[in-house]
Amino acid sequence: MKNRKLLMIPGPVEFTPEVLRAMGMATTSHIAPNFIEIFGQVLERMREVFLCPSGQPFVVAGSGTLAMDMPAANLIEVGDKALVVNTGYFSDRFVAVLERYGAQVTQVCAPTIGDAPPLEEVEAALKGEGHKLLAVTHVDTSTGVGTDIKGLAALGREHGALVVVDGVCSAAGEEMRQEAWGIDVALTASQKAIGVPPGLALVVAGPRAMQAFRERKSPVGNYYADWNEWLPIMEAYEARRPSYFGTPPVNLIWALNVSLGQILEEGMDACFARHRRLSEAFKAAITALGMQQVPVSPDKTATTLTVPYYPQGVDSSLLGHIARSGVILAGGLYPGIKEKYFRIGHMGAVTPADILATLGAIEQGLAQVGYQFELGQGLAAAQAALAQ
Amino acid sequence: MKNRKLLMIPGPVEFTPEVLRAMGMATTSHIAPNFIEIFGQVLERMREVFLCPSGQPFVVAGSGTLAMDMPAANLIEVGDKALVVNTGYFSDRFVAVLERYGAQVTQVCAPTIGDAPPLEEVEAALKGEGHKLLAVTHVDTSTGVGTDIKGLAALGREHGALVVVDGVCSAAGEEMRQEAWGIDVALTASQKAIGVPPGLALVVAGPRAMQAFRERKSPVGNYYADWNEWLPIMEAYEARRPSYFGTPPVNLIWALNVSLGQILEEGMDACFARHRRLSEAFKAAITALGMQQVPVSPDKTATTLTVPYYPQGVDSSLLGHIARSGVILAGGLYPGIKEKYFRIGHMGAVTPADILATLGAIEQGLAQVGYQFELGQGLAAAQAALAQ
Repeated sequence: MKNRKLLMIPGPVEFTPEVLRAMGMATTSHIAPNFIEIFGQVLERMREVFLCPSGQPFVVAGSGTLAMDMPAANLIEVGDKALVVNTGYFSDRFVAVLERYGAQVTQVCAPTIGDAPPLEEVEAALKGEGHKLLAVTHVDTSTGVGTDIKGLAALGREHGALVVVDGVCSAAGEEMRQEAWGIDVALTASQKAIGVPPGLALVVAGPRAMQAFRERKSPVGNYYADWNEWLPIMEAYEARRPSYFGTPPVNLIWALNVSLGQILEEGMDACFARHRRLSEAFKAAITALGMQQVPVSPDKTATTLTVPYYPQGVDSSLLGHIARSGVILAGGLYPGIKEKYFRIGHMGAVTPADILATLGAIEQGLAQVGYQFELGQGLAAAQAALAQ
Repeated sequence: MKNRKLLMIPGPVEFTPEVLRAMGMATTSHIAPNFIEIFGQVLERMREVFLCPSGQPFVVAGSGTLAMDMPAANLIEVGDKALVVNTGYFSDRFVAVLERYGAQVTQVCAPTIGDAPPLEEVEAALKGEGHKLLAVTHVDTSTGVGTDIKGLAALGREHGALVVVDGVCSAAGEEMRQEAWGIDVALTASQKAIGVPPGLALVVAGPRAMQAFRERKSPVGNYYADWNEWLPIMEAYEARRPSYFGTPPVNLIWALNVSLGQILEEGMDACFARHRRLSEAFKAAITALGMQQVPVSPDKTATTLTVPYYPQGVDSSLLGHIARSGVILAGGLYPGIKEKYFRIGHMGAVTPADILATLGAIEQGLAQVGYQFELGQGLAAAQAALAQ
């Protein structure tokens, strides 16, 4: 029996063999001509994957937490007003990060867990308040809620706020068209749909964000996250010249170039469509198995992950049974309900085979904990959806 | 002919096959039991490699620049006095980082490039000034100067300053006994003598530093570098419990555990002695080839790298010839003299074979640019030193 388990959590996800080979290759100098070319390609490809031709990419050693820190540290000055659209754990974090740099944060909270605030409420909060920044979590990994970032970005723009989207659990999976939708900063981490092991903070800042950054009056209060230091480095490598502020994480950047190349070879529209199709098949199966989801309705639901409540009489011991069937899933995260639900990530290089293998393991686990259902009914629903 | 070149720069260095295999293995969940155990071991082994049994390790996704940022962001409050012992490029950076958080920085500068300030001057600068922090670059990668951190740490302690040592180009190569020598914070990056591809900021903070951190009055001004956030994570993983602030860079941490294990298997004393022996052999060869070094005297010279001036009539085109002979070396970095010298890193998993291969390529390069010497005279000097 294979010892290797399938990793279907909301990150790190399964990576392609080509990406893992790049991770394990002999490290080059960070100023070697072949590495300079790779880093240059990475920056160009970041724009393509984020669909932001006039954006400035930042690729820096760090986690997604650093990627959230960057726009806050570089755009906020003490006393600036910021509005956070709160849909879960990672929106709470946005509040903390923005406040760290002196922002006066207002929140528009979802009416209930699993929901997102209506656009009208966000608009009412924005109106006449002079918010400098509107922060939105595209996909809240804790709840599986997906927000209408296209609608929210339009509102932010209309009211003069810089629109910052946490795309950690969305970029290159969930549809996000940064430039066309007017998103000023989009950020993510490498280990999600971007398809590279954890260790890279990835940010693309549009022209309005860069202008606001250049116009700030006070120095940036965070040394490592300071765009004044990183911008010349990114510009140099894109112009195929080496430059130094911190040693770039060579292997991770090489792996990122491989993964971005694979994503672009598929094409962004095809990539979004695949994520949507697999998500719909997976969610159809979850429904067929009699499970409810944390997101309150399909239009509030992410496509990169599925977040079901345990069925009645089943608890988190289910995950151990599923793991013994070969698939690793994630438990709940949101305070108050974390024991009541679990999370399945299906993003990045995910395939129909992964979806079916995962559902098979879930069915086996459910049977082992004594849940009453007909074995195969989830798989059949997924197959029907995949055949459409 | 082998296409693979030997990377002998002051980082990234050559990594062992076992480390590279860990980099390229399938990524686990950051809360998988086997990863939790690995991360726990890493934290324990950090203390052993830094020779700091009562230290608190921080292992975070980032570059060495973040590792320098951490003690500044967490220990400095606006108006604190700090003294920087300036021996080159990375000491200049210490000044910039400390000033970013409001430190009033005084510097004691080396009398000339390649030298380090005398202990008496540092003592005079410390006396009665109430410096909160004394910052020292152990090995300045730009000049190859090694400082007497044992003597400087004793001075810092005597005058009540927290001693912060940038060990980026020294930790696990140059002799550094953090606890015995009274170093309060030692920091490094993964890609040097620690022997792991770039992407990890590594810090060990002793009890006095952690106490000063806990006693600070103002909040830490940097979100990502904040020890308030990272300390509970490090404590949890060391207690073999998962916890979350940012997704740990799983593959890099796995690789770090492999490398720390290899270092500890050799033993710290043996590891320091090997670095010293190979350094002496290499430097004997450089002298035998008629080249001067940037450090002014052996007691001011690092053992992890060698920094020779080009001989008369030779310029930086030498490095291209050496590269074509199969060895990658680094050019100069320090403003004003960067065209006049080059740098060879010999740290981490470096062997006598690497030393001889590098010298062979340097001799071939020198011959190709028309430098007058007897082929083999550098190698013979190295062999004689290695035989002692």
